[in-house]
Amino acid sequence: MIIGQSGGPTAVINASLYGAITEGLDQTKEIGTIFGMVNGIEGFLSGKYINLTELKGTNELELLRTTPGAYLGSCRYKLPEDLSDEVYPKLFDMLNKKNIGFFFYIGGNDSMDTVSKLSRYAETIGSRIRFIGIPKTIDNDLVLTDHTPGFGSAAKYVATVVREIIVDASVYDNKTSVTIVEIMGRHAGWLTAASVLARTFKGDNPVLIYLPESPFNQDAFVEKVKKSLETTPNLVVCISEGINDGEGTFICESSGEVGLDVFGHKTLTGAGKHLENLIKDRLGVKVRSIELNVAQRCSSSNLSETDLRESSNAGVFAVQSALKGETGKMISFLRRDDHPYDMSYQLEDVNLICNQEKTVPKEWISNEGSDLTDDFIRYVRPLIQGNVTIPQENGLPLFAYRE
Amino acid sequence: MIIGQSGGPTAVINASLYGAITEGLDQTKEIGTIFGMVNGIEGFLSGKYINLTELKGTNELELLRTTPGAYLGSCRYKLPEDLSDEVYPKLFDMLNKKNIGFFFYIGGNDSMDTVSKLSRYAETIGSRIRFIGIPKTIDNDLVLTDHTPGFGSAAKYVATVVREIIVDASVYDNKTSVTIVEIMGRHAGWLTAASVLARTFKGDNPVLIYLPESPFNQDAFVEKVKKSLETTPNLVVCISEGINDGEGTFICESSGEVGLDVFGHKTLTGAGKHLENLIKDRLGVKVRSIELNVAQRCSSSNLSETDLRESSNAGVFAVQSALKGETGKMISFLRRDDHPYDMSYQLEDVNLICNQEKTVPKEWISNEGSDLTDDFIRYVRPLIQGNVTIPQENGLPLFAYRE
Repeated sequence: MIIGQSGGPTAVINASLYGAITEGLDQTKEIGTIFGMVNGIEGFLSGKYINLTELKGTNELELLRTTPGAYLGSCRYKLPEDLSDEVYPKLFDMLNKKNIGFFFYIGGNDSMDTVSKLSRYAETIGSRIRFIGIPKTIDNDLVLTDHTPGFGSAAKYVATVVREIIVDASVYDNKTSVTIVEIMGRHAGWLTAASVLARTFKGDNPVLIYLPESPFNQDAFVEKVKKSLETTPNLVVCISEGINDGEGTFICESSGEVGLDVFGHKTLTGAGKHLENLIKDRLGVKVRSIELNVAQRCSSSNLSETDLRESSNAGVFAVQSALKGETGKMISFLRRDDHPYDMSYQLEDVNLICNQEKTVPKEWISNEGSDLTDDFIRYVRPLIQGNVTIPQENGLPLFAYRE
Repeated sequence: MIIGQSGGPTAVINASLYGAITEGLDQTKEIGTIFGMVNGIEGFLSGKYINLTELKGTNELELLRTTPGAYLGSCRYKLPEDLSDEVYPKLFDMLNKKNIGFFFYIGGNDSMDTVSKLSRYAETIGSRIRFIGIPKTIDNDLVLTDHTPGFGSAAKYVATVVREIIVDASVYDNKTSVTIVEIMGRHAGWLTAASVLARTFKGDNPVLIYLPESPFNQDAFVEKVKKSLETTPNLVVCISEGINDGEGTFICESSGEVGLDVFGHKTLTGAGKHLENLIKDRLGVKVRSIELNVAQRCSSSNLSETDLRESSNAGVFAVQSALKGETGKMISFLRRDDHPYDMSYQLEDVNLICNQEKTVPKEWISNEGSDLTDDFIRYVRPLIQGNVTIPQENGLPLFAYRE
């Protein structure tokens, strides 16, 4: 078998790798060597891979479970749409030379696109290699699954830090202030929405929460901030980086540069900074903006035990599914109940998942687009439960590093 | 007794409050009611205080120990230099009316200035009220003490997050990239220096570390980045917000606005952003800057058990010292040994501490101002040792909140 990681890292993408490796090591009858692509399919195409079987029984393998980032290295590489492109026979030739029977790819939307193309190409040439996608994204934006591995830990991180920022914002409470927290999420506001968990009572901060799913009106925003300051003198507002006017123009485009990444996504900076300047200009109050930045996807300090367990199990289930003959599928989570939380693993057609985006349902967004409903809270709360103790050495977390 | 908090919050300023309250509650023979100033001396002057004796035996008191921020609220209020100002008799009148015998103030440089003035005024009028300062600052910039409560936890937070950012920066390792991490510290680089602990081997990231103590030359910086990229393709650089040209001009002043706070300190933004643009312009490589921001002072996710214990003990020792008749003193830490770490509590004259600033000694800065020596590592490592489990509810940290 061979396994790779792709797209932006999360705090638990290596937990899925850990799950797949440990299950692969257990299935000695059907799986010989376990290879790891270095820097995803892009790296593999240039001949970069390692032997993961050698991790058997090592402490390194155990550390891998709680190591953030992508142990194998990642890539942002899109396979050609045209299945008659020469890269496909080249890749399958490489896979066949290593006697690969099972191909696992851990990633988000774009990575599922890779699994889709490879499984479809395999069908056209009658290859028996099986291709399974293991979901991963802090954005929680994959369709046909209740949620995605990586989201729960990122949500727990965001809710924790926002709760701490609320405490920090309240220390000078004889004054009026606005704190704007900018949270990751281009088109899907799941992670920003999770900041609602930081609230300790009704009406508590963050009083206002804005997602990309609702059109953002700057005048209405200023009015809401002004009104909220009357009851909450130290106001905390959470916004997605991707808030927009509902017609495709990002708020940050009002004042900053915008570029395109390799997948044609707009790269964003500064929605928070823009709104900071707006509030300063219009209301003249003390205001600061805080970008939570990469720690949202790489902090191991606030892992959700639920997320960690599910991510590892997704890796295990992927190997088991491939051995049962499945291909062209993604591991999916089915929620049976919220309370007590009850979840099971299943498979969905990867072709129906790739290049789709699941956003926060309109019916979970309230207060003219500035709050979340109790239904959303019931959805997200189980995903952040449980703490994880990270192995430490000399007072700092100990991680696994590829040689 | 009465106690207050002042200046910027830290993750353990409430641990000192906890220590002082619990010791005050134990000393029933000499201490009656324990009052807390709300929003420091500024709030107290406007009649804001609470009764802390009521916390006795409550869960709230136990939660206080691990609650970040300033439970009592803080202020940035400077008492007049002129001891004949009318605020002094007004304040002492208020203290006498409440029958206050012991006055404790938790804070940094500016708060020690308050303790100094009040104890000197008390002497002039023959007041028997005793004034003791309890140090607190993530900046570690107080003189006459080995280190300050709050620094250890902030240092542990910085080293942990920088280690995670290093992991995050290495996932696309077939490309060249520069990550600039901006860390708090206007004039003293202690916190930025602590990022050296994130290194796992000699030559590892963060390869370059710049403090305000060394003159920063932008051309030399670009050259060092260029050279470092040859051996470390995904380079991580840590800088203090206060890096400057050695003649008083902050690097961030090259491109951003600069204001003054109430104490006449320059308020800074954007040294990291400025250097990001510089590197992009000069070297044309992929570069990003990350501002660690307020989580450095308010995150409870990476408390140092050593720091938490010492902070609490500083509060206990303050009450014990006041009861022994001490006044005009600050609690100070004396280190007897690094390994095993051996520390004791003592007192220093607060007049010799206030309005001074302890910077990182030149002999601990190496490599023409871009690295730290092993002596510094021996100094800082003991301060981040030990983990603390924060009480949780529903997957999030549970904090104490003032009614």
